[in-house]
Amino acid sequence: MKKTLLLFAAMFLGLSAFAQQALYGGPQTESPVINPDGTVTFRIQAPKAVKVEVTGDFLPTEKVEVEFNGQKMTYDAPGVGVFKEGRGGVWEYTTPFKVAPELYNYSFRVDGQTVLDPNNVFVNRDVASLTSLLLVDEPGARSDLYAIHRVPHGTVSKVWYPSATAGFDRRLTVYTPAGYETSKAKYPVLYVLHGIGGDEDAWVTQGRATQILDNLIARGEAKPMIVVFTNGNISEEAAPLENSTGYTRPTMSLPQTMEGTFETAFPEIVKFIDSRYRTIAKKQGRAICGLSMGGFHTLYITLNNPDMFNYSGMFSAAIGTGSEEKAAHKEIYENIDGKLATYFAHKPALLWIGIGSTDFLIQSNNEFRAKLDAAGYPYKYMETDGGHIWRNWRIYLSEFVPLLFK
Amino acid sequence: MKKTLLLFAAMFLGLSAFAQQALYGGPQTESPVINPDGTVTFRIQAPKAVKVEVTGDFLPTEKVEVEFNGQKMTYDAPGVGVFKEGRGGVWEYTTPFKVAPELYNYSFRVDGQTVLDPNNVFVNRDVASLTSLLLVDEPGARSDLYAIHRVPHGTVSKVWYPSATAGFDRRLTVYTPAGYETSKAKYPVLYVLHGIGGDEDAWVTQGRATQILDNLIARGEAKPMIVVFTNGNISEEAAPLENSTGYTRPTMSLPQTMEGTFETAFPEIVKFIDSRYRTIAKKQGRAICGLSMGGFHTLYITLNNPDMFNYSGMFSAAIGTGSEEKAAHKEIYENIDGKLATYFAHKPALLWIGIGSTDFLIQSNNEFRAKLDAAGYPYKYMETDGGHIWRNWRIYLSEFVPLLFK
Repeated sequence: MKKTLLLFAAMFLGLSAFAQQALYGGPQTESPVINPDGTVTFRIQAPKAVKVEVTGDFLPTEKVEVEFNGQKMTYDAPGVGVFKEGRGGVWEYTTPFKVAPELYNYSFRVDGQTVLDPNNVFVNRDVASLTSLLLVDEPGARSDLYAIHRVPHGTVSKVWYPSATAGFDRRLTVYTPAGYETSKAKYPVLYVLHGIGGDEDAWVTQGRATQILDNLIARGEAKPMIVVFTNGNISEEAAPLENSTGYTRPTMSLPQTMEGTFETAFPEIVKFIDSRYRTIAKKQGRAICGLSMGGFHTLYITLNNPDMFNYSGMFSAAIGTGSEEKAAHKEIYENIDGKLATYFAHKPALLWIGIGSTDFLIQSNNEFRAKLDAAGYPYKYMETDGGHIWRNWRIYLSEFVPLLFK
Repeated sequence: MKKTLLLFAAMFLGLSAFAQQALYGGPQTESPVINPDGTVTFRIQAPKAVKVEVTGDFLPTEKVEVEFNGQKMTYDAPGVGVFKEGRGGVWEYTTPFKVAPELYNYSFRVDGQTVLDPNNVFVNRDVASLTSLLLVDEPGARSDLYAIHRVPHGTVSKVWYPSATAGFDRRLTVYTPAGYETSKAKYPVLYVLHGIGGDEDAWVTQGRATQILDNLIARGEAKPMIVVFTNGNISEEAAPLENSTGYTRPTMSLPQTMEGTFETAFPEIVKFIDSRYRTIAKKQGRAICGLSMGGFHTLYITLNNPDMFNYSGMFSAAIGTGSEEKAAHKEIYENIDGKLATYFAHKPALLWIGIGSTDFLIQSNNEFRAKLDAAGYPYKYMETDGGHIWRNWRIYLSEFVPLLFK
């Protein structure tokens, strides 16, 4: 009996001793470590490696020039930190600066091969890419909204709706705020849309949206609301791993994303949500926002349904990219001046625009705002540091949500 | 405008060309590949590597002798496949056999450093360990239950319940079958418990439980039922990443897991589910099952609440390990013969026991069955190949569920 207990303990509690080494590769070193002085140390055991680097969005960006389709462009690439080898083949890198509170993505490069930090179990999937996660939290900092606190938690559900447009069931992520299930009240609904590199999981993983909602509601800074995270690729049932195409590699060549079909089909999602949940099923109880492609979707869904949403938020919206020219549903993108006039004549409570000062989309957003200014249409605007990055989208969501349904 | 579109496309559709390389490390080679002859090929680009191996549960196990606390023991370790280096530093390994339909876990070792397959985005977290996933599916095979098909899908929710025992809110995963939300009917409830190396996510990730339920219900082989996946470590709010301890490393030293507290507290979960969902809130509408530690929990929760469950399933139950001797709630584990007599006097519909023929717990399970046999207590028994592994637990769940609530 004692031997069985020992073996049981060995198999499960002492896995790192041997069994875990075999299949799982147990942790050999601690990484990442947030040091008392606010710097962060990364480690990896790689005795035979020649060069080990870390790259991630906690490092200052570097200008990189690339050639794409014969055109030269520059973009802001994450910086690189170079490890030094220490005892036992453990490589180490410590940031030469205090890392500001934020949620970061990073990965290692061992002799040119990109790998996750093997000592960090916190991994984010962004469509077909995995990165390690680092949360530097500080009470009072905005990052505190991204952490889980002992406050009432909403329910997060994966719900399938029948899409007449797609011809099959499609998956949504739905947040119902704490208290929804035991209340008889009707709730307003916020629809939150992802970018072209995302799916119905993106806002609740990288976006930390359900933590932001839990925390803002608990602080009394936001109204309790239902939040619906859609999948903006109408040709997909659901995120990778969660659809009937099986364990095939997700690709970045996404059909039916910015050519009008999703915008045309959006009212069927609103109809489903209004039938399934206790909603305030009218304009005053509805908001919509989205990042990048989702900001583009937000604009056109709003303009083509001027009585549907009282609040619209465009986060780094991917407008002016020319995708409208190849649209399957050209009518969605036509007569924008007329649609803007109708939309503003219906007096929406809020059009909110946010973008980073170095975002490659800032010019087209500036042109759009100039058009609004020229016509005297009201909107709120926020410009932040940095570019087309999740840090900004989490900020925009946490700024936008407190303005809703007041 | 055209340049913006190009850059936009480059940033998102052509990520692998450059931007992805910087932060995300784009795919260089395809891996894993299921070949037409049923073998599987794994690849990794590692030009400077000296030795590359793959290890995983698709390979035949190898007997490994280890010493733990001064005792020698053998266990079945996953086998190892050795790669050969090819052109461009791409290492490759092809199985010398057809890989049977199943869901497998594997990882690579590059010069002794365990890494995930960098070309495979499908990753499983088992507490603090990550592995790459391989699903070999074949219509008609049992593995077909683990795949997502275009059948009606249940809703999968993360729900928090107030635990009076713990003193804080704790997270459950709850499956409501397709049709639940639009029905007025009451549904039976199956409670499904994880092992010591798991949490409320384990059965829906590695266990493929919601796919098994969707598919069995769609085939008419199981009754529509609510399924509740608990977290068996009462000192935890929720799985790693999902609790207020933040992004700290999860450990394998789990307090409050097999010492009676969870079993004592279980009725508060049943009470919560009966209050929140439309349940058949009596013995005839309740079932419970669990793997390893969860099988141990299942036995003692059942015996201590003889009128609560009509169906109980012990999957590779971790009984006879001696953990009861150090219990905080000794009464849970005392007077087992008397409790068995009472339980069977209440005529439960089913006690189901499943275990692998090479499971290190088979002896204690055989002793338990001998006790049942001696007393003439009825139960169903299934013995499968292999040991203490997820493949068996998925099989047991898919055998147990069709027997419920008939």
